[in-house]
Amino acid sequence: MKSYVAEFFGTFWLVLGGCGSAVLACNYPGAGIGFVGVSLAFGLTVLTMAYAIGHISGCHLNPAVSVGLWLGGRFPSSKLLPYIGAQVAGGIAGALILYLIASGKEGFQVTAGFASNGYADHSPDKYTLVACLVTEVVMTMMFLLIILGATDKRAPQGFAPIAIGLGLTLIHLISIPVTNTSVNPARSTAVAVFAGGWALTQLWLFWIAPIVGAAIGAFVYKFIAEEKR
Amino acid sequence: MKSYVAEFFGTFWLVLGGCGSAVLACNYPGAGIGFVGVSLAFGLTVLTMAYAIGHISGCHLNPAVSVGLWLGGRFPSSKLLPYIGAQVAGGIAGALILYLIASGKEGFQVTAGFASNGYADHSPDKYTLVACLVTEVVMTMMFLLIILGATDKRAPQGFAPIAIGLGLTLIHLISIPVTNTSVNPARSTAVAVFAGGWALTQLWLFWIAPIVGAAIGAFVYKFIAEEKR
Amino acid sequence: MKSYVAEFFGTFWLVLGGCGSAVLACNYPGAGIGFVGVSLAFGLTVLTMAYAIGHISGCHLNPAVSVGLWLGGRFPSSKLLPYIGAQVAGGIAGALILYLIASGKEGFQVTAGFASNGYADHSPDKYTLVACLVTEVVMTMMFLLIILGATDKRAPQGFAPIAIGLGLTLIHLISIPVTNTSVNPARSTAVAVFAGGWALTQLWLFWIAPIVGAAIGAFVYKFIAEEKR
Amino acid sequence: MKSYVAEFFGTFWLVLGGCGSAVLACNYPGAGIGFVGVSLAFGLTVLTMAYAIGHISGCHLNPAVSVGLWLGGRFPSSKLLPYIGAQVAGGIAGALILYLIASGKEGFQVTAGFASNGYADHSPDKYTLVACLVTEVVMTMMFLLIILGATDKRAPQGFAPIAIGLGLTLIHLISIPVTNTSVNPARSTAVAVFAGGWALTQLWLFWIAPIVGAAIGAFVYKFIAEEKR
Repeated sequence: MKSYVAEFFGTFWLVLGGCGSAVLACNYPGAGIGFVGVSLAFGLTVLTMAYAIGHISGCHLNPAVSVGLWLGGRFPSSKLLPYIGAQVAGGIAGALILYLIASGKEGFQVTAGFASNGYADHSPDKYTLVACLVTEVVMTMMFLLIILGATDKRAPQGFAPIAIGLGLTLIHLISIPVTNTSVNPARSTAVAVFAGGWALTQLWLFWIAPIVGAAIGAFVYKFIAEEKR
Repeated sequence: MKSYVAEFFGTFWLVLGGCGSAVLACNYPGAGIGFVGVSLAFGLTVLTMAYAIGHISGCHLNPAVSVGLWLGGRFPSSKLLPYIGAQVAGGIAGALILYLIASGKEGFQVTAGFASNGYADHSPDKYTLVACLVTEVVMTMMFLLIILGATDKRAPQGFAPIAIGLGLTLIHLISIPVTNTSVNPARSTAVAVFAGGWALTQLWLFWIAPIVGAAIGAFVYKFIAEEKR
Repeated sequence: MKSYVAEFFGTFWLVLGGCGSAVLACNYPGAGIGFVGVSLAFGLTVLTMAYAIGHISGCHLNPAVSVGLWLGGRFPSSKLLPYIGAQVAGGIAGALILYLIASGKEGFQVTAGFASNGYADHSPDKYTLVACLVTEVVMTMMFLLIILGATDKRAPQGFAPIAIGLGLTLIHLISIPVTNTSVNPARSTAVAVFAGGWALTQLWLFWIAPIVGAAIGAFVYKFIAEEKR
Repeated sequence: MKSYVAEFFGTFWLVLGGCGSAVLACNYPGAGIGFVGVSLAFGLTVLTMAYAIGHISGCHLNPAVSVGLWLGGRFPSSKLLPYIGAQVAGGIAGALILYLIASGKEGFQVTAGFASNGYADHSPDKYTLVACLVTEVVMTMMFLLIILGATDKRAPQGFAPIAIGLGLTLIHLISIPVTNTSVNPARSTAVAVFAGGWALTQLWLFWIAPIVGAAIGAFVYKFIAEEKR
């Protein structure tokens, strides 16, 4: 039960911090943080939470990660749905607080996107559906490879939050222009609920692609990491 | 006694480094560090001091943090007021040195803000009082969650300064446009004393909101972290 | 065998992440990541993979690194060619995925460079062949010094991926304007195969210079690190 | 003897990497790394070398640091002058390589500054001599506090290179506009030798101020860190 609350607050922070930096600070005239700052922010939500609540819930904060860890044999199936529920609920709570803050500025319009993920006409740089699909699948695959590898017993202990958090930063540095970067269905859902319209219509891709990618990543890691006997 | 002097120098560094980067380097034409640089600077003052004086004073550097750790049962009430006194004094000393340096450039005007925190008309991006209040409460709540979690005995040892320092960087990446980011009454007081005017009039919020947020954060962490028996 | 597959995926990630951030995100109008973001991305591909697969293959991801470690007595000659083969193949696979994604945007032209390395007329800032040669030799020399030093038994354990990854970030911060930064023949080859033309014609330098630099670095480290007897 | 060669290469890297990023990449049109990138580069030269050669020479790379450690009782006086000699020589070698590279671009003029440190008319943002003096003294004082604290036996082991390297990044984030940031007489000397003119005339300040600051820092740390008996 404690672990579900931890996942709730962790994903709350991922959405408030990551999407919040994008909505509030990315384009501030003259000193805005740009995609470098947004990428750092997303990664640091995970880095900070992994040190803060990793010992409580494992700090997944992401349905695709929970699925990948389950397929990789590191997470019990009994906890899978409650974790995903807590993540989506926490993400929506984070988006709600962000909405409260962001709407405190004159001229704010949630329908302008609210950091939602999108493809084709709603890709930031207008990438096709196929390009967006490939991006989300491959990025989540590599994210799972990083997560499974860095938390392997043979990897240096204590450093996994750095590898995983900065891994998410890296994924954003590459792919914000393509899909606004999801690799996380809870993050996509949380803001789409507020943005409505196309963000909801396109949401399916940001559930399917990350989960497919996570499954491939779990498979690849199993293959390369299997102990020699 | 040594620990009070350590808190003095630590908060001196937080204000000189964090506010100093904002005043001296944020808007340098063509190569200015922007909010990404200022966010990094604030976080690195805490990261560096946590490794340098963490073993001496615990490196709070922030009255809200001291209050939160006290409520979380990690800090004795007898040291609370002396710590806060040392933090405010150190912060003002840092602002004094920054004033000496900044006024060495022609045209410098301390009344232009001096990196003070503000709301409504004095929010960098003109966010309402309520938006600013919510921001400071929630950001400090999450800051305490990070601090209490990363210094928990069950978390990896030695990494807390990275989590906490980069957590402060993250908080700035999100919220500089809203309140110029406080989450720290000593930091707000230190520069408001020099800026005067609205910075002093609005200072109340940057004592109340961070302390309320810290108290909530301490309560939340207690709830999720309680050992199973 | 597992280690070759690990090198394949690691170098896949280095090219997709590093060159991908350059092709997709560097120049996004108003919020592009610039050379700071590209430098971070290259470094983080190595940092993340070193934690994820370091315990499987050592995580070289770079023929010059494999040669340097072999000359430094840390890598068996029997594995040298298979490692280089896996790195080049993985890099090309990463460039292929990047090509699939990048070509999903209207107006994309692979012949515009595709993050290839170049000298003289194809140096980003038009540095001469000699300047580019010196840069690649010296940067790779220092890269090997960092790698050999940080993985020395006497260095703090577990931190090498941070030193090596951020070392690659540093090398990019310095030298992108000179050669677009290689220090890695597999990375150069992977994108040159797609860009064709001058990128292929100039590829020789990005095999010779990094390998010469790695050899010098291995020699220097041997000299300064030899235990006193 | 090995330790002197290590200091030579370490300071070589500090000047080539730090000043190199400033000369080659800071102002690249559209994607230049700015002061954030230069600050990161300076810090990462120290972080990478501290992991690479810290076990060989202690990785000072800076006469002011060697003096501060000597005054703090952590470094024997017999090695002080040879270390300073190796640092200055290594720095000049780094500046020489940088000169070779930089002059491979048409229009390069070493007399434009070559990343030299300066005050008053040669302060990047025209700060007075007094402001520059205060800046260099206080920044070096805090640098020594970080170094002495992070390498204290009671601090977490293995993390000192991160604290010290990112501490140097922080110092640059604050003070590049004031003095172009020295805190290191070897770094200032290395490029002034090539820039000539005002850079040499103003060099005195970048020996005196850092050394005075380092001495104060050593004194402060001794005071706050003394074990309770």
